[in-house]
Amino acid sequence: MEQFPQTERNQVKRKPDRGRYDKATIYPIIDEALICHVGFVLDSQPYVIPTIHARQGDRILLHGAKGSRMLKFIQTGGPVCITITVLDGLVLARSVFHHSLNYRSVVLFGRGELIEGQEEKLAAMEVVTEHLIRGRWQEARRPTLQELDATAVVAVPIESASAKIRTGPPIDDEQDYDLPVWAGVVPIRQAVGEPASDPRLKEGIPAPPSVIAYPGRGESNHVA
Amino acid sequence: MEQFPQTERNQVKRKPDRGRYDKATIYPIIDEALICHVGFVLDSQPYVIPTIHARQGDRILLHGAKGSRMLKFIQTGGPVCITITVLDGLVLARSVFHHSLNYRSVVLFGRGELIEGQEEKLAAMEVVTEHLIRGRWQEARRPTLQELDATAVVAVPIESASAKIRTGPPIDDEQDYDLPVWAGVVPIRQAVGEPASDPRLKEGIPAPPSVIAYPGRGESNHVA
Repeated sequence: MEQFPQTERNQVKRKPDRGRYDKATIYPIIDEALICHVGFVLDSQPYVIPTIHARQGDRILLHGAKGSRMLKFIQTGGPVCITITVLDGLVLARSVFHHSLNYRSVVLFGRGELIEGQEEKLAAMEVVTEHLIRGRWQEARRPTLQELDATAVVAVPIESASAKIRTGPPIDDEQDYDLPVWAGVVPIRQAVGEPASDPRLKEGIPAPPSVIAYPGRGESNHVA
Repeated sequence: MEQFPQTERNQVKRKPDRGRYDKATIYPIIDEALICHVGFVLDSQPYVIPTIHARQGDRILLHGAKGSRMLKFIQTGGPVCITITVLDGLVLARSVFHHSLNYRSVVLFGRGELIEGQEEKLAAMEVVTEHLIRGRWQEARRPTLQELDATAVVAVPIESASAKIRTGPPIDDEQDYDLPVWAGVVPIRQAVGEPASDPRLKEGIPAPPSVIAYPGRGESNHVA
């Protein structure tokens, strides 16, 4: 089982029993979430920006307009922290003190680099698009050279990472189990509704396989 | 309409038409989300940590164990960035280039302070608990002095903030509207499942009003 070494930076300090360092735990969380939150520092000021991501092996791909402040920062090779969080439920204990959430989160660290070669850039865009919704790369019009030129794509090799996971029912203080207070978990998931066709969609174009098969169509979590 | 001034720090630079600076837009997004992502800097390294939050007037409350690295940093009064993101849908355009997400996000900046007075701390815990699930403060056992002592609660007055919002169908290049490619939006929302009682729940304790009324019980978004 491939593990990230535990260091000062990635160690789960609060509730260390919830910490995980193996890729087999960390990577599926990264792959399940549609977005990440990217942290970077400009003039000692932290910024946290939500954005679409995808994992390509041991690195995270991010993309956007060439002028993006975040992507320009990442191209300089400065340190970034990328955090991915999936919520699974409200944990309602008998005591306010033990209320919590069930969740799976990943905090990862690295320094990025610009993807410059046109083929590598196109391959990265395919990974990002397929992360968003599998099968879409085959359906939609691919990027032109001009569009590729207007897009910055960066890769952040994962130097270090950890996952933190809480599951299961509330844990109350032993004496509180006698209290006449309801306790349990209210499950939360990301649900998917009925696809809404673009009002300008031409007649006779049905929803494609990617949309019909989209994970979670109201039934379960999005799983990439 | 109360607005946050636009500065270099909070300005929405990419797609400025999606930027909003008024509290009437920003605060409901903060209130709807169950968690935020807190960015801070230690030794030039950015950290982004997901955590439960609540808004109390013009400030954000965060809490946790006294030893939390994040809360210890915030108590020093260093700069933080708190980002809140609500996903609303996949935006599937005819071209890969115009794929996107519908979302509502808030990026806010401030410097925090420790809440020290026991009454103010208790009031803050009430706001946080009620943000998680309205009505729960009346149902659950309130914090003891010992529990309050073990908890750090910080407030981050919002110095500056902006929201960024995308809604509606995809926007394709004019010539692409003729392509035989399905385009539209796949709605995404946070859904709530059937409450699962704690296996150790005593018989005869029904799910309480807070849980029965919980917004979104499979029907709609969580709205705090």
